[in-house]
Amino acid sequence: MKRRLLTISACGALAVAVAFLAAAGSQAQAPGAARYTADGKLEFPKDYRTWIYLSTGLDMSYLPLPASMMGHHMFDSVFVDPASYAAFQKTGTWPDGAVFVLEVRGAQDKGSINKSGQYQTTTVMGRETHVKDKRFASGWAFFPFGTGEGPAAALPQASDCNKCHEAHGAVDTTMVQFYPTLLPIAEAKKTFSAAYLAEEKAR
Amino acid sequence: MKRRLLTISACGALAVAVAFLAAAGSQAQAPGAARYTADGKLEFPKDYRTWIYLSTGLDMSYLPLPASMMGHHMFDSVFVDPASYAAFQKTGTWPDGAVFVLEVRGAQDKGSINKSGQYQTTTVMGRETHVKDKRFASGWAFFPFGTGEGPAAALPQASDCNKCHEAHGAVDTTMVQFYPTLLPIAEAKKTFSAAYLAEEKAR
Repeated sequence: MKRRLLTISACGALAVAVAFLAAAGSQAQAPGAARYTADGKLEFPKDYRTWIYLSTGLDMSYLPLPASMMGHHMFDSVFVDPASYAAFQKTGTWPDGAVFVLEVRGAQDKGSINKSGQYQTTTVMGRETHVKDKRFASGWAFFPFGTGEGPAAALPQASDCNKCHEAHGAVDTTMVQFYPTLLPIAEAKKTFSAAYLAEEKAR
Repeated sequence: MKRRLLTISACGALAVAVAFLAAAGSQAQAPGAARYTADGKLEFPKDYRTWIYLSTGLDMSYLPLPASMMGHHMFDSVFVDPASYAAFQKTGTWPDGAVFVLEVRGAQDKGSINKSGQYQTTTVMGRETHVKDKRFASGWAFFPFGTGEGPAAALPQASDCNKCHEAHGAVDTTMVQFYPTLLPIAEAKKTFSAAYLAEEKAR
């Protein structure tokens, strides 16, 4: 589980203030205003399922999968707070206060009338947030919540999550290369990181 | 493509009026107010990616997959307009005017730093909506948009989509059995259809 969260992650939880979603003519009060506890932990953003959906993968991994994974499947889905999504539409990058939630969920093949493929079950296997906030030296931090909803402490700034996202995230340490509706915006706004562009060029 | 849309569907497009999302303490003007053309076609709800995400499957099918599908993968994701989602939280069923969008999207395994599993690509392979509206004899209609964004005519009320959803949809002709955050609500509110309960009991 730990390795999984680490390898697929791209998420977080904080949103600075009440803001309005200006995308597509609609308007929505940002539900993503996360809060820190007095001792600096992040409160779990319980309403993230009403945030903006970015994408889902099945069994994604940035490392070769071990044999023990065979036959076990997981979906990973990423959500972002509405105000930050609206900002990305205009700028191709994230404002301070952007919050992402990665949700890892069980997968099942047979059930009800489904005969093949995989669908999502009610079992949440883990959740992690990724927050853009100047209080952290790098400007970003990861908060693993596991299967609970209690406040979570930030991972160290030198965590594998931080290092991988800094090295490979297409836009400002986030994995926009896996978010199909954001990728064309970043391309148009030319907001890809230098590291990502170099990596893609060398591919 | 046609069979695929037919077998996995659960979607639509209309939302009666401006409404407010009351879920989880947030408030959002419903962006899902879809419109019909003068000749009764449904306008494509262009802002559906800011609606509420319900779930994603990979290669789901309600029929055994043909050999020709081997090696080809697709994600199907379902979104619902915010006002109808908020209503479901309270009642366990859908209000008149509920609108669902099914999005079928390409899948890819290798790309950027991903080594295994599948992630979503920028290729949209089809979209279909499912609308609850008293103007239709059964109270529901499907609108296939294909890969375009032009207005779509409703499928006949006796279409395979209609028949399958009427026979197997867990709640009011919708496939809530595949929407993990809604399934426990329907269970608690006891809003499963008689047909679905009988089918599960016989399993």
